[in-house]
Formats: sequence, C-alpha cells, structure tokens
Amino acid sequence: MTMTVIRSEIRPGAYYDSAVLMQLQRGLLGLPGVLDSGVVMGTPANLELLEQSGLLTDAAKKAGVNDLLIVVKAESEPATSDAFAQVDSLLARRRSTVAQEFRPKSLETAVQQLPEAGWVLVSVPGRFAAGVAREALNLNRHVFLYSDNVSLEDEVALKQTAQSKGLLVMGPDCGTAIINGIGLGFANRVRRGAIGLVGASGTGLQAITSHIHTLGSGVSHAIGAGGRDLKSDVGAITMHQGLDALARDPDTRVIVIVSKPPAPEVATRLLAAAQATGKPIVVDFIGYPPPARKLGNLHFATGLSEAAEMAVKQLSVISDQSLITVPLITGYLRGLFSGGTLAYEVMLGLQAVLSPIYSNTPITESQNLPDPLKSQAHTIVDLGDDVFMVGRLHPMIDNDLRLRRLRQEAADPEVGMILMDVVLGEGAHPDPASELAPAIKEIRDQRPEIEVAAIAIGTDTDPQNLESQVERLKAAGAVVFRSAAEAVEYVARRMTQRPGSVGVPVALVTLNRPLAAINVGLESFYASLVGQGAQAVHVDWRPPAGGNEKLAAILAKMKKK
Amino acid sequence: MTMTVIRSEIRPGAYYDSAVLMQLQRGLLGLPGVLDSGVVMGTPANLELLEQSGLLTDAAKKAGVNDLLIVVKAESEPATSDAFAQVDSLLARRRSTVAQEFRPKSLETAVQQLPEAGWVLVSVPGRFAAGVAREALNLNRHVFLYSDNVSLEDEVALKQTAQSKGLLVMGPDCGTAIINGIGLGFANRVRRGAIGLVGASGTGLQAITSHIHTLGSGVSHAIGAGGRDLKSDVGAITMHQGLDALARDPDTRVIVIVSKPPAPEVATRLLAAAQATGKPIVVDFIGYPPPARKLGNLHFATGLSEAAEMAVKQLSVISDQSLITVPLITGYLRGLFSGGTLAYEVMLGLQAVLSPIYSNTPITESQNLPDPLKSQAHTIVDLGDDVFMVGRLHPMIDNDLRLRRLRQEAADPEVGMILMDVVLGEGAHPDPASELAPAIKEIRDQRPEIEVAAIAIGTDTDPQNLESQVERLKAAGAVVFRSAAEAVEYVARRMTQRPGSVGVPVALVTLNRPLAAINVGLESFYASLVGQGAQAVHVDWRPPAGGNEKLAAILAKMKKK
Repeated sequence: MTMTVIRSEIRPGAYYDSAVLMQLQRGLLGLPGVLDSGVVMGTPANLELLEQSGLLTDAAKKAGVNDLLIVVKAESEPATSDAFAQVDSLLARRRSTVAQEFRPKSLETAVQQLPEAGWVLVSVPGRFAAGVAREALNLNRHVFLYSDNVSLEDEVALKQTAQSKGLLVMGPDCGTAIINGIGLGFANRVRRGAIGLVGASGTGLQAITSHIHTLGSGVSHAIGAGGRDLKSDVGAITMHQGLDALARDPDTRVIVIVSKPPAPEVATRLLAAAQATGKPIVVDFIGYPPPARKLGNLHFATGLSEAAEMAVKQLSVISDQSLITVPLITGYLRGLFSGGTLAYEVMLGLQAVLSPIYSNTPITESQNLPDPLKSQAHTIVDLGDDVFMVGRLHPMIDNDLRLRRLRQEAADPEVGMILMDVVLGEGAHPDPASELAPAIKEIRDQRPEIEVAAIAIGTDTDPQNLESQVERLKAAGAVVFRSAAEAVEYVARRMTQRPGSVGVPVALVTLNRPLAAINVGLESFYASLVGQGAQAVHVDWRPPAGGNEKLAAILAKMKKK
Repeated sequence: MTMTVIRSEIRPGAYYDSAVLMQLQRGLLGLPGVLDSGVVMGTPANLELLEQSGLLTDAAKKAGVNDLLIVVKAESEPATSDAFAQVDSLLARRRSTVAQEFRPKSLETAVQQLPEAGWVLVSVPGRFAAGVAREALNLNRHVFLYSDNVSLEDEVALKQTAQSKGLLVMGPDCGTAIINGIGLGFANRVRRGAIGLVGASGTGLQAITSHIHTLGSGVSHAIGAGGRDLKSDVGAITMHQGLDALARDPDTRVIVIVSKPPAPEVATRLLAAAQATGKPIVVDFIGYPPPARKLGNLHFATGLSEAAEMAVKQLSVISDQSLITVPLITGYLRGLFSGGTLAYEVMLGLQAVLSPIYSNTPITESQNLPDPLKSQAHTIVDLGDDVFMVGRLHPMIDNDLRLRRLRQEAADPEVGMILMDVVLGEGAHPDPASELAPAIKEIRDQRPEIEVAAIAIGTDTDPQNLESQVERLKAAGAVVFRSAAEAVEYVARRMTQRPGSVGVPVALVTLNRPLAAINVGLESFYASLVGQGAQAVHVDWRPPAGGNEKLAAILAKMKKK
C-alpha cells in the first residue's frame, strides 16, 4: 500500500463559472502524481460527494456554500504542493484560450453590440440568475433561463413581468429549446417541420423532438417552460404563452405539450386552452392519468415515444369532426349514474376540462360531493352507492330514485345538461326506456335549454332490445352514446369554457425571424449558437462585487441612492 | 290548491327484501287518490330523500335504520286510510304470485336439492350477507356476493377462507359476472369467445364485454372481484385467483383486468402476476397513470372502450417477442440519469413492476430517496437535480459525477443492473462514449453479472455522431435502447419477480362445467338464471329471528352452547 496525501484549500466567496471549475479539476488530475481531485462549491451535498470519493479532509469540512473548495489527493507531499502551486496558472491558462477583446462586460453593452438579438440565454449560477433575467426583460428580450436553483418567487415575478410585455421566460431550469431551427442550451439537431412543442421538461422535449426527426418529420419551434411552470404558483404562464403562439403560427400544424403531472386546476385551464386552439394537440403529462384517449382535438399519449408517434400521425389527418364549432352549453352538468365505474370514467374524463366538479365517486379528495343527495356546480352522482342502497333495489332495476333526482336537477336553474347511463342486460330493468323516456321528454318540453344525454350500455342480444331502447330515448329528446368515452368527448366539446387571455401575446415575428441571441454564462452555449449559424454575443459576465454577497448588497444600496 | 294529507307508519325491525318494498311502493302509487309514496328503511339518507320529495313527516323522522318506513301522500284523509289498509294485502298479494312449495328454506337444503350447484348467489341485505356467504363457503361453493354494505373485515375473512379452499368470493358489491356463458347478477348477453376478464368494477366489466361483443368477438369468463378487492386490506385476492384461473384456462387467449386505481403495492404484485401468465393482458386501471403503453405482454388501455378494442386486437396477434422467456436478473436496478424527465418516465414505468423503488424524482412520496447520494433497493437518480448542480456543470456536459457514481454502484454487491441515459445534441458533451464506454467496460470486466443498459437520445445529425456513440457503448458491453419506453419494457421483462402462490388454485372444471347455482336474495336473479338455461334453485330466505338483531344475537349464542 502506498502512502497518499490529501490536502484542501478554501477560497471564500470566490466566483468561477462551472466550466472553469471543471477545467481546473481536469487540469489538476492531469498533473504528475495526482490521484484524484475535487473542485467544488462547499455545499453539504458536494462535501458528502467528496467524502464518498475519499477526498473530504477535516479542513475541507469548514467550507461554506459560497466557498470554492479545491482538494487534491496525490502520491506524495511534493506532488500535492506542486499541484496547488499550479491552481492559479491553470485558471489563468483556461482564460487565455479565449479572445477577450470583443466581449461586452454587461448585457446593456451586448444589446448595443447586437441590437437584433431577441433572446438572452442565462446560465449563470442560480443566485445571480434572476437578476440577469430581470435585466434582459427590462431590455425587452425573451429569456432562456437555463440556470437552476432559482427561487419560485423569482420565477413567478419574472414570468408575470414577461407576460405583461409579450415576452417569454423559458425556465428556470430550462434545459432545451429550438427556436426557428436553432437549438438553445441542450438541443438535438432536428429537421424543420410542422410540429410545434411546449414542454416543462427538458429531456422530454429532447426525446420527443429526436423521435419526431427519426420518424421523418420535423419541428417548427420547441419552447421550454421550466420544470415548475405547471405548478399552481406559476399557473403555467409560459406554457399558456407558448401554446397561444404556436396556435397562431401558420407553420405549426400539430402541437405537443409535455410535462410532469400538472396541478389539477392548472391542467384543467391548460387543456381548455389547448382545446380552444382547434389544432390537433398531443398531450403527454407524464404520470397524469389520461382523461381519455381523445377529447376532441386533444390526443393523450402514454410516454415520450408515443407522443412523437401521435404527433407525426396527426400531421396526416386531414379533417377532424371535432374541430367543427359547436354552440357552447352554459350552466352545469349533472350526471346521474347507475353504474359506479361508468360514473368514475366520466368523472376522470371531465375533471380534465370542467371545474369545479364534484362526485360521490371522486378522483381526488377535493372533488368529494359533501351530500350525495344534493348536486353542486358540475356533479356526477353514482346512484348505486352504498348510501342509497339500504333496503332499496339497485338503480339498474328500480328507476324511482333516478326519476326523482332527474326532476330535482331539471328544476335547478343552473343546470345546462343532464347525463345518465342506461345499462341493459340480464338482471336489469326489463324496459328502462319506458320509465326514463317520459321523464326526459318532460324535461325537454319544460326546459328545452337543458340538454339530456344518455350512455346506453348493452348488446343486440340483450333482453331489453337495445335498438328500441336507444330509439325511444332519442325520440324523447336525448342524445344517445354507446360508450362513456364518446359521451365524455361530446360533453367536453359542448361545455369546456374558453379560457381567458394569456396577457400580451408573444409577437410571432420574434420567433420566426433569424435567431440572434446574447449569452450570459456557459460559454459552450455561445459556441453552440455560433456553430449553428446564429448571430450571438457572449457577455464576459462577473457577479456583482465578485460574488461577495455582502459587498453586493452594499453596492446595490448605494446604487439606489 | 288542493289539500293533501301525508301519513307514515313505522314497522320496527321488520325484514322485507328490496323487491318486495319496491312492489309495495308501486302498489300504493296505483291506488285511487294516492299522489306519492315512499317505502324505505329508515336510514339518514333515505329520510333525507323523503324530505326532498316532500314526504317526511315528524312522525317518520323517528324511524331507525332497521325500521321499515311507509309514507303515503294522498288527496284526502280517506284515501290515505284506504292505502294503509291495503299495505298488508299488497305485501301478501306479491308473495302469492310465486309458487312456494318447492322452495328450500335454507342453503343446506338447497344444496341437497341441487348438489351440482357450484355457485351461490347472495343478494340479501348487507348486514346478513357475510353470514350467508360464509355458509356457502362451508358448503364448498363459489360465492357471487352481490350485496353491498358488507364490512371490509368480513370481506377479507371471507376471501381468505375462500382462497384456502380454492373457491372464489366475487364481491361484495359485485354487480356482474359471466361464467361459462351464463350471466350472474347484471350481465349483458355476449358471444362466447377467447377473451377472459377479471374486474373489480361491475359496469366496467359490462361495458367491456358489451363492446367486445359489438366488435364481433366473445368472452370465455368474466369474473367479478368487488370494488374493494384491489385495496391494500384485501390485496386483490379474488383478482389474483381469477387471473390465475384464466391463465390456466386453454379457452382463454387474451385477458382483460379492470378496476379503479389499485393501491400501489397491490398494483405492482398484480402486474407481476399478469406478466408471469405469458398471455396478452389488457390492463385498464381507470385513473391509474399507465406505466407505459406496453410492458411485455401487458397492454395498458385508456378507458373501457379502448380496453375492449385492444383485447380484440390482441386476439389476432400471433407471436410476441416478449413472451420468449429470458433469464431473470437478481439484484437491484440502479438508474443514473442526466435527464430528469427520462428518469421520471422510467420511474413511472418501473414502479408498476419493481418494488420497493426509490428516486429523487419520485412518483409518490413513499418513493422519495432520503439521500440522493446513496441508492437503496431499486433506485433511479436524476443527477441533474438542483442539489447536485451548485457550482457544477450539468451531467450532460460533465460526466465526473456519473463516473464516480457508476463505480459506487458497481461496488455494491446487491446491484444486478445499471441503467443510464446518454443525451446527445447541441450543448451536450462532445463525446460522452469516450468517457462512459471505458467505465462500462470496467464494470462488465470486473462484475460480469451486472448488466449495463443505456438509453441513447439523439438524432443522426447530432454533432456527436449517434451511430458511433451507440456502437462504442455496445462494444463496451452495454445494451443500448433508443427510447425510455424500450428500456422500461426490457428492464420489466428481465427484473420482474414472479409472484408467489395464490393459495389453492381454483379448479378449472368448476368454471367450465354447465353452470348450476343457488340463489339467495333477489328473485329476479333466479329468474334470469333459469331464463338463460342454467339449473338453479331459489332459497326462500328469511333473516335470523326475522331480522331482529337482538333476538338473532341471543339465538346465535344459544346455538353455540
């Protein structure tokens, strides 16, 4: 066993960009006698990582989150000393590979240098990122905010400002975007085409755009939103803006939206907006139970590959019945079901577009109908629930309970549509239409503005005569479907409320003209832009007061005065 | 305005079956001068329903849950009196329409009368149902338990007993089943065929079987499990038994399982069992986010109609690569991802079959990895998580963090497989294989029992040369996939543990011989059985001590002594 020496050095409050730190670490590793090295900021996670690599010394444990920590493990004491002696020259050597003279030191100067730049890419460390993004918005530029570790409050504030100015803030923690053929951050080289994407998920967008390319199709724009955009606090501001822009973009024929599961109310508003675009929309909310396979122009994918496949397939679908405009029903939906699972499937489908919706067979706790005997807002009731069933026949056999509830709902001035199931077969009522059809007719006669729809479940060999049941329900004035899925799709089309404005719309020209950008942070992103033929300027950015936060605060105060 | 009279009568602790009560109500409604009527057990919900219909008198409010409450609303006092005078004769009239002489009074006698009866249908009121079901199990009969309002404890006890005897308890609250062509309870008349179903959802099974019929295919058996079967307490005992039986049934080629969302650990065990059958299985866990579109022989449907369509489609699929037996990998999976969404999609897919599984990008809270720097059991880590990113380049650019973690995982004796993503494109590392391939080779050389798999995301035009990256990863000993979905499917096939026994298997002959049954409860179910050509006996059942619970308890005590 050889003797090894580990030594560390702490540089308090020093700022270096992450690429510089990586280069330093690699430089140290390349020196003679050096066995391992760590160059990190002194966060608890980084200290633990050093410990796992056998690089944590007692001295190193004292490093704070804003301190740079350099550790070298070497074969001998002299090798360690030699390595540390070269730290500064290694840092300096890296710098000298880049020509500095033409580099602006501030965003303001950079904008003067490249006035046509519509975009600012921000990849500085998280604690400085919001400030740079704010500056970019003040200069009326879209922001691609790659940085992570940005607070939720900053995100909301930035996005609200952007929204009021018709600007996009993609991020924070936005890994990827493709605007007018140019990749920002991490982006695969894909064919131009008619599929537009908005994603709160970086590798989600990368996987889908790559697969679209592999399938022979292409991408108009892929807009990133940042992983938290669909949380309640943010309310999907960026995804709404992106969706709206792609809906207006004549070169985008199919839209894909992708995200981890959104907050329920955010999903509802977003899907309503997606429906209102009229364009085919493929939705992949990974881990969100799809409300249906298809809801009008919305197509729900299971997984990233399938999302790409469905989008490509939609490109070749010429006309879509669902796109025909139908008059909207105002008022609430009341669903009166005898089948618990049918109620549940309808609930699952409609919760995506109708809100608030309640049920005694709820999907989430907040949808629980306090009193199953009284509807409120949109309501789906399972009349076969245990609570109704003490000493009473099931509503598939005995229509009494449903007939009374039908009259109750029809008397409610807030009701716009009543939906029910009619389940045929052995054991069920021998002729449900004989009792339900007159009740439907009564409603349609007295309140013709209330639409009545029925889902008939059965076969052509069932004892009740399916065809005659359906005919009599129709004759009474009901719209009749043969599955819950069809009914859900119909109700969604008739009752989804058009969402409100997304603020000042993003001007399409800012997306569709040749991309020019200012890069603040990782130099490799600048190199990538230039390599792709985009005009770009890299800012030689330094944190305020060299990263010393106390000093920065004093400077900021002085500036205000 | 006419004067109306409402009068009520309470019959304490009296038992009548629900059909009799419905007939009485209808009889009363048909009498001259009667405007409305309610005949219900005095539960709070029923009293509220009476109030909504304007039928609740002060006297009626005193009815208890075990009391029969009769309310009549009539045009005049004499009409009310006349109606009540006829209650007993209406009850008697109904009885006299049925020939009583051949009816056994007990299950035991019924079994002597029809020894070939393999099934007992129980539809007595909930509080008596568990007792009747227990009696049926003691007589070694399968139970179709239609009754609702049965306690969870009773359900668990009944199913455990059944399981130990190779018997099924379908229910409680089981609305439907089709056994060997005969519908039990509510069931649609459908063609015989090669699709078998197990459902914890009555109208779910009805909707799917009806749609299968409409599509021209047919059903071998449709086994009900009851709405609570997939809850943790019950552990899907009946669905496991049904799945096992259908897997062994040579006439069943495709299986559909349907339920509301199962408890996560129940889902995992059930899907593992489904995978082990080797038959194509269509899964519709309504509201459960599908782990993938396809996992080996498992096909995940979005909705009841689609479940039917997928099942019919699977009938015509001849061979399936996934059915080829592959050697199982023992040990744990460790996923080391640079893409958060890829990690999440893989997590979503694998949580359905691997348990326990942890992640710093968990789907449910219980999957949260306490320390992202340390794996435990199956683990999926997103190395691009904020916690890793302070002062460090993203793992798509800098492989250092992943290389160290790779070595750490490879040193863990419990590890059986390592999965990673390799994301190419603009902004990413110019040649990830140059660093990852040697690390993979080192693992494969030192611990060849560890399998290494990679998901390569990119396009043929990406700057890294996709083809060369893939070739070098393969040459190092990795299995390489082009999407998360493919990788998930592969891992699921290699790592899903075969589930344990389902207890004593249900003898197929008890399903496949001509159905004969004993009916206890709703007479209409008996009529339906006979109408379908099945042999059946109806028990002229009365609750112990005429439904008086106190008396019944005394009798039960005396019996024990």
